[in-house]
Parts: sequence; C-alpha cells; structure tokens
Amino acid sequence: MPKKSFENDEKTVDRLTHLGKKIKNQLKDPEEDNLTIETQVRSRSNVEFDEEDGRLSLGDSYSTRKFLNISHARKFMQTLMVASKTKELVQQGRTASIREVYYQLKHSVPGLDENTFDDQDESNNVVVDIETATGAIREDLHLFAEPKGRLFGPIKIDDSGDIIDGMSMGTSGMAINSIVDHFEFVECEADFVLVVETSAMVNRLVEEDFHKDHNAVIIGTGGQPARGARRLINMLNDELDLPVYVFTDGDPWGYYIYSVIKSGSMSLAFQSDRLATPEARLVGMTMEDIEEYGLEHVTENLKGKSGDNGGPTKDYKRINDVMDYPWMETEEWQNQLQKMIDKGVRIEQQALASQSLEFVANEYLPQKIENRNFLD
Amino acid sequence: MPKKSFENDEKTVDRLTHLGKKIKNQLKDPEEDNLTIETQVRSRSNVEFDEEDGRLSLGDSYSTRKFLNISHARKFMQTLMVASKTKELVQQGRTASIREVYYQLKHSVPGLDENTFDDQDESNNVVVDIETATGAIREDLHLFAEPKGRLFGPIKIDDSGDIIDGMSMGTSGMAINSIVDHFEFVECEADFVLVVETSAMVNRLVEEDFHKDHNAVIIGTGGQPARGARRLINMLNDELDLPVYVFTDGDPWGYYIYSVIKSGSMSLAFQSDRLATPEARLVGMTMEDIEEYGLEHVTENLKGKSGDNGGPTKDYKRINDVMDYPWMETEEWQNQLQKMIDKGVRIEQQALASQSLEFVANEYLPQKIENRNFLD
Repeated sequence: MPKKSFENDEKTVDRLTHLGKKIKNQLKDPEEDNLTIETQVRSRSNVEFDEEDGRLSLGDSYSTRKFLNISHARKFMQTLMVASKTKELVQQGRTASIREVYYQLKHSVPGLDENTFDDQDESNNVVVDIETATGAIREDLHLFAEPKGRLFGPIKIDDSGDIIDGMSMGTSGMAINSIVDHFEFVECEADFVLVVETSAMVNRLVEEDFHKDHNAVIIGTGGQPARGARRLINMLNDELDLPVYVFTDGDPWGYYIYSVIKSGSMSLAFQSDRLATPEARLVGMTMEDIEEYGLEHVTENLKGKSGDNGGPTKDYKRINDVMDYPWMETEEWQNQLQKMIDKGVRIEQQALASQSLEFVANEYLPQKIENRNFLD
Repeated sequence: MPKKSFENDEKTVDRLTHLGKKIKNQLKDPEEDNLTIETQVRSRSNVEFDEEDGRLSLGDSYSTRKFLNISHARKFMQTLMVASKTKELVQQGRTASIREVYYQLKHSVPGLDENTFDDQDESNNVVVDIETATGAIREDLHLFAEPKGRLFGPIKIDDSGDIIDGMSMGTSGMAINSIVDHFEFVECEADFVLVVETSAMVNRLVEEDFHKDHNAVIIGTGGQPARGARRLINMLNDELDLPVYVFTDGDPWGYYIYSVIKSGSMSLAFQSDRLATPEARLVGMTMEDIEEYGLEHVTENLKGKSGDNGGPTKDYKRINDVMDYPWMETEEWQNQLQKMIDKGVRIEQQALASQSLEFVANEYLPQKIENRNFLD
C-alpha cells in the first residue's frame, strides 16, 4: 500500500517534537525541578456547548502530570516510548492498532527485573496522555481502532489508491474503517447523506434500492456511531456540501445517537470540529409519526418509570439525561421528549414494517424529506 | 434490487407448503386428536461428530410440539402466521430481519383484547420451531441477521447484479452480510483464503499488501465468526477449491474459532454441511511459535488456574472444555492444548508486532504457508 499520509502529519510531528524538546529542556535546566507535561481535562466538568458553533468543546481546565521522583520514572519512560513510537509511525506513513503499539514496546528493561509495560492498560493510558498533551488525536498519531458501520450509494472514494464504487456494493456495502481521513471523494452524484441507526434498516433500504432511486449515500452506524463513521459524515457534509439526515429509533438512545452526530460527544469533545456535523437533522422516528402513520399497535412501552423504589431508571432515566443536555434544550426537542414521557412509549424504525416492508423506502422517507419534516 | 432467489427457494416453499398441508389434514381428520409439529432436538445431547465427514451434525432425537387445547391456541396461531409470512418472503424474492417479521405480524386480534405477539422473543422462538420442523434454515426462509466481518483480495463477486472487486477495497473492505448464498464468484485469482480472527490483524495485513503480494482472499471474522462469514468460507472452499488457512490468537478462544470454522458449532450443528469447512487448517498462533520466533517476553499469563476455590475457571476451564470436544481429540491438538497448560501462557496474533510491524506479512505467514507448517 502507498504510505498513509494525513493532512495533519507535519503538524503532528511538530507537536511530538515540541513535547520532546520541552522535556529535554526541563531535564537540562538546573533551575527546573518540575519535570511535567500538561494535559487538558477531558471530564464532563470541562465540556462546554458552543451555541454559535453548535458543537461541544473542551473548556480551559488543564491538569499537570508530574514526574517528580523515582516513583514516576516508569510512567515517564512509558510516555517517551509511546511518543517516540507514534512519531515513527507518522514518519513512516504506517498505521497501527493500540494493541500492536503495546506489543512493539513491551520488553524487559536490561539489567532490571522489570517490563516496560505489564499490560495494555498502561500503554492505552499513555496514548491518551499524549493526545491531550500534544492536541494530536489518535488518528493523527496513526493509531486505529475496530471498523464499524457500512456505506452504500452514488459516490466513488479513493482509499489508498483504490477506487471504491459505493454504487456497486450489492447487499454487502463498504465497511467503514476507523481511519478515513485519507479518503478522496473522486466522484459524487448524491443529493444527501442518510445516516441509519440499525443494520437491519440499512439492509431494507438497500433491498428497496433507496440509495439508487433517491441518490442517497446511506451510512449505517450499527448503533452508536464509531469515530470513523462520524468523521466520514463530517467530511461528506463539509467537503461535498451534502445535507445529512439522521434516521434513528424514536427513543432516548436513538436521539442521543443523533445528538452525537450533530454536536459531538462528551468523551471526544476536544475533536468535535472534525467529528460533529451541526447541520445534521433528524428525519425520524418521532412521536408524531405514531399517529401520522398509524403505528399505535407497534409501539413498545418505556421501562423504568419511578415508583416505590425511587427515581426513574432505564428508558425514563435516559430521557431525563438527554433532556438535561444543554444542546438538547431547544423547545422542539424538549417537547418531543416530554411527549415520549406522556405517551410512555418508544417507536422503532422497524415498526414501519407493520405497514409493508417497502413502506419506509417508498413513502415514509421520501415524504418526510420532500416536506422537510425534520427535527433539529 | 433484482429479486433475491436462492438455490433452495423451491425446496423451501415445498417444505413450508408440506408443513401447512400436514396441519390442515390433522385438522380435518376426525380420528386425529393430536395437532402437532415435530421438531429436531438441537441441544448438545443430540449433537454428534461425524469423523468421516469431519463435521458436527444432529442425531435422531425429535420432540413433538403439541397444540392440544385452548392454552396452545396462541402458539398455534403464531406458528402459522410466521410460516405464512416467510413463504411470502421467499415467493416475493425479498429478505427481512426477524425484527421486521415481528412488526409485520404484530397486531391486535379483532374482537379480542389480545395481541398476536407481545414481544419479539415469541416470534423468534417460532422461527426456530419452523426451522427445525421444516429443515429450512433461517437463510432459506429469507431472514437475515447483523452483518459481521470483512473481505479483501483478488476475487470479483456478483452480489445482486453488482460486481464487487475485492482487490479495489483500499483499507475499507467489503462488509460481509448475514446472507451470502446469492453470491456468484465471477473471477478469482486467489491461491488461498486466509481467515483472520482480529480486525487489527486484518488492517495490518492489508496495509502490508499481503492480499496482493500473496494472492490471498482475506476474511476478517472480527472475533467469533458469524453465519455469513462461515458460509462464505465454505463456498470459497467448495466452489473454487481454495485452501483455507485460519489465523487466530494462540489461546482456547482462538482455537475454538478455528474449530467452529472447520467442524461447525453445536448450536448450528444441523447446518454444518453449508457452514463448516473440514479442509480448513490452522496456520497459527501455536505454542511452538513462542520459541521459534522469540516471543517469550510478549506472552500473556493464563488466568483461572485451580486453587483453593475449587476447579479451574476462565482460560484454564476453557482449555479443558476445548480438549473434551470429540472433534479436538487428535493427538496433535491434545498436545498443543497440554503445552498451553504446561507453559501457563497464551500468545496473541498482535504479539508478532514485537518483531516488527511487517514481520507477520513478510516472514511469519509466508514461511508457515510455504513449509505447510499447519495444525489440523
């Protein structure tokens, strides 16, 4: 395969080099008795919602990791080893899994009865330290995770020199890998991107030729979307100006998937600019669909209403959580979630099959999109 | 999409029709007071290993589901509804998820305060009843599950009229859907199939161009292989005469994956003839690899040795289980698993990265395959 070069490669090498130089200067300077690296606090307390931008981001809290004495020596060594290894990956144009990095660096320290790393948790934690210390994210460091999700539709993608034709994928689809930053969109006839929560619904839409009949790039997330799928949606919207419609179950879990695609997630708030797509809109399922399409007999009851044993749990608790997110505080969303509580039910994408298998592809989605009947 | 027609369609319709006629005759016959369907027992007690054939299969135990009285009326109705719906799917050339079938059939019964189905467990159980009563499996009934796994390599597949080129998949790969029976292999330059347990190892091999340099169809199972991947491996071996090499972690879980690919699994023993590939051979990881390739420092200790709290648990228990399977009773396998117990360690595919990232693609696999250094 040709070398993997990403947009940020030069910046990433600079950042890693800068980290190394800073540590080297601290070591040399006799005045300096604090050997430290500074990392951005990633917990919820430091997550902010930028209303203007429509994305989550990290606030200004930093924490300092100190390497003061002999008890920190191990962590210090590990940090430099991982930083050096990822710099090598970027410079060589290769990618690796975090597990491979662990095995590449694991060995006994000469002269000591001690391993560099004892288990992968140690190297994983160091990777996170380096991400927040340098501002370079895992993908910038050329580290990949599990593939998740599928793509179909009228788009041709150059992936490492191979041209993948999303229109010639049968029922199979292109698997979405965890790193997609190197994709080039060489041709696109699509009018919009349809993001679909469940794999079964993707199969349905593909069997009905929805992607062909409606010029849609279909992205199946297989539940909660992974980083690769989120990045790809962002790129399709940003580089090709494609509108993004999100199609989930009508329940708090589905709506949270929508919110992650639109505004970003708390744990990855520091990279919402590349993962979140504020222009995304929810096409369904909504509480109004239940009456509109005669789905009363195929709803499912919500679970976990508060009772003798205290506050709400399960579905009800999740609804409350989602209602409390600052980025879901619009009137439209609060009404939608309140309606769910009042009705006491959820409605799944698959419930549309109660009309007919083809109903979702031939009537439901085309009507909603035509009438711009969306939730923001 | 063109209609989905599978090899067994005619047979499946015959089988479902036969089931319906049998029930109709029982209803008509005044002599007959036992309205029943007969299903094959699927539990482990009825699983046999056919040494000649090298596959698991079901024995001769049958159980009879009786619809004797009013308390069975609900189940009886459900069985006929699902049988009728799947016959419709086959005849229309469509596929559906078991969840869609549930929603298609769920409605209130006119005149009664009762639903046809209250939750999906009910319809799922009926699907299994129909599978064992007719001998038609879920795929024959046009019912699909989640996609799982990826494919790369020098093969062109006709999937529903689209030609998918496995050689032009970049780092993404073709997603493997749960139904692949309709695939036509229109062109194949491959010398063998390499089945790989972990997604990270698939990424590694693809990045190193292993599929291109060694004419290999790479199938990543992403852990325990799903039905679609197992069926595809079987078809590649059976229709194209390709040898199948399986590459897993060197631990009882990896070896069980190998055994499922080779001999079939207990829960799907009744369809081993289409899912199992007795010619499959294990290329690694083996206990001998640890010394051969200097991997002593990157093994992981086995967990769950027997102690004060009783017999073995975790890894050790799993090793004992695997050693007890009749189809793992060859001397070679018993030695291998005993060696694992003696060493007290497991060895992962990713551990080969301790040599270098490219080692697995440039040395380990080519050497092992060249020297036919396999485990059966």
